[in-house]
Amino acid sequence: MQKKEAIDNLINRLFSGDRLAAARIMTLIENQSRHGASILSKLHPKTGRSYRLGITGPPGAGKSSLVEKLALEARKSNFSVGIIAVDPSSPFSGGAFLGDRIRMQNVTQDSGVFMRSMATRGSLGGLARTTQEVADVLDAFGKDLIFIETVGVGQSELDVVNAVDTTVVVLVPESGGGIQAMKAGLMEIANIFAVNKSDRPGSMELASEVEEVLNLNPENKNWRVPVTRCSCLEGWGYEEIFKEILAHREQVISSGIFKEKRLLQAEEKIKELVKASFEEEIWGNLENRKTLKKMAGQISEGKLDPFTAAGKFISKIKFSAEKKGSE
Amino acid sequence: MQKKEAIDNLINRLFSGDRLAAARIMTLIENQSRHGASILSKLHPKTGRSYRLGITGPPGAGKSSLVEKLALEARKSNFSVGIIAVDPSSPFSGGAFLGDRIRMQNVTQDSGVFMRSMATRGSLGGLARTTQEVADVLDAFGKDLIFIETVGVGQSELDVVNAVDTTVVVLVPESGGGIQAMKAGLMEIANIFAVNKSDRPGSMELASEVEEVLNLNPENKNWRVPVTRCSCLEGWGYEEIFKEILAHREQVISSGIFKEKRLLQAEEKIKELVKASFEEEIWGNLENRKTLKKMAGQISEGKLDPFTAAGKFISKIKFSAEKKGSE
Repeated sequence: MQKKEAIDNLINRLFSGDRLAAARIMTLIENQSRHGASILSKLHPKTGRSYRLGITGPPGAGKSSLVEKLALEARKSNFSVGIIAVDPSSPFSGGAFLGDRIRMQNVTQDSGVFMRSMATRGSLGGLARTTQEVADVLDAFGKDLIFIETVGVGQSELDVVNAVDTTVVVLVPESGGGIQAMKAGLMEIANIFAVNKSDRPGSMELASEVEEVLNLNPENKNWRVPVTRCSCLEGWGYEEIFKEILAHREQVISSGIFKEKRLLQAEEKIKELVKASFEEEIWGNLENRKTLKKMAGQISEGKLDPFTAAGKFISKIKFSAEKKGSE
Repeated sequence: MQKKEAIDNLINRLFSGDRLAAARIMTLIENQSRHGASILSKLHPKTGRSYRLGITGPPGAGKSSLVEKLALEARKSNFSVGIIAVDPSSPFSGGAFLGDRIRMQNVTQDSGVFMRSMATRGSLGGLARTTQEVADVLDAFGKDLIFIETVGVGQSELDVVNAVDTTVVVLVPESGGGIQAMKAGLMEIANIFAVNKSDRPGSMELASEVEEVLNLNPENKNWRVPVTRCSCLEGWGYEEIFKEILAHREQVISSGIFKEKRLLQAEEKIKELVKASFEEEIWGNLENRKTLKKMAGQISEGKLDPFTAAGKFISKIKFSAEKKGSE
């Protein structure tokens, strides 16, 4: 009871702009606290307004520095800003990568910016979900623009991309040419390319290569993916990137994609919660777990195959046909 | 009926070593043919013997060339070899990356080697499952060693890693130092490091850096992760890598990890099939899909939150309590 009041108090403090309350709520959500669902339910009515940006690219591309620069641009235009930095840091690294975060000091001392670092600790499972939930908290906290910084283009990262409205892919001259970017699946996800560290040799070539590859795609209709160059070291180029972000945002909102994405996300969220609930129902049951272990043993001995096993298993659990029309 | 006989015929041909039949079966499985499950059931008794190797690393690290060289080493030791190359190729690329495959010609003309290229076509979802199933076909086809070549370390790739017994991480001097490798989560998955293109400057430095980072890990007990160097261009180093692969294989088999992994994989496979079956049961139902759409609309309008929605939804579908003990 008392705990519930404490949670309600935290939520009210978040609504009134209390940064510590926001941070505390994010920690509860990241740690999968049992209060997570009820907190997110209560925050939900205040969400749906923020615009979400994904900043992705290989390790070492200077994503953190670029996010900081873009956040400063956003602040100049009076947008409030949230930043989620996803670190695929490992049991090896511990807190070793604070360096990146320290570099972001310029923006994190601005009260219009809220920065959250999330460590994946080697496990990427569930990352996309937690990232989205933390973004929801930032949304309810009133941030206009939320930057989500991630590495790579694996499935988990693709899920993150599905949860953002504009994706900026950051490349560097060293990260290989346009063909490499294409092989890595970056062409599909980029709304804007940013060739960072363009003070180094090869940046012009990389930019033209990426443009050439983009021109191979016959399906660019409503949006021509711009290839921009910037140098955080020399301090140029990010104004242009931010301009392109605003232009893409304009197009995403006016075309209805923004609204449509939120509908799809709501569907996905329900599906995910339903799935989680059924899995808990099935595998939380000791008898079922025993059957599973027994069947796995028979499978690894070649006496049973997984398909027959699953069929047998399913035949023991049935749905009652209580699906009566709409709610 | 006739179709079923045709499938049985294909399977018998595969068992008798017919490469075309093997290729045809892999295509059926990749295309998610409705015969997939029954084919895999029938192949299952002949699987479980092959040893699976993951070869992973950034695009451009020369994984394909290295796999070819390692396959040649394996043939020298009389292992039969299967190769699965996962290309995260895109709608942009079409067949453009055949180059990599053509380079593998030396091994693919050897009847002791079966090579399968799998394009993800931008979508990584389900990749891990299909890769495993194609590996199962190669297993039933009698291949001793199966090389699985993948890019990156996203969730999907981690799933692939979970399905292999030994993981070789390929780096190149250009791919950034040990710290970058650590940030990319490579330290956790590597059983063996291979610094490829070691004819180039910086390879010794990279190797020592990676070794230093590995030494930070206090948990290496049964296996000291070796950092090897090689150059496919100059033709040296892969004998050593193959020796390390055999040493790791020895350790994996003798320690029981090989058997244990297969048990876990069997459990995971049953769980996955059960999940797929329930999802089909729920979302294949028109009423349920209507309810979902309606709820998503209310959520995006802020009138309902996803957690409450999922709760309402679940309350309409119930399990009957027919879980009666073990099978």
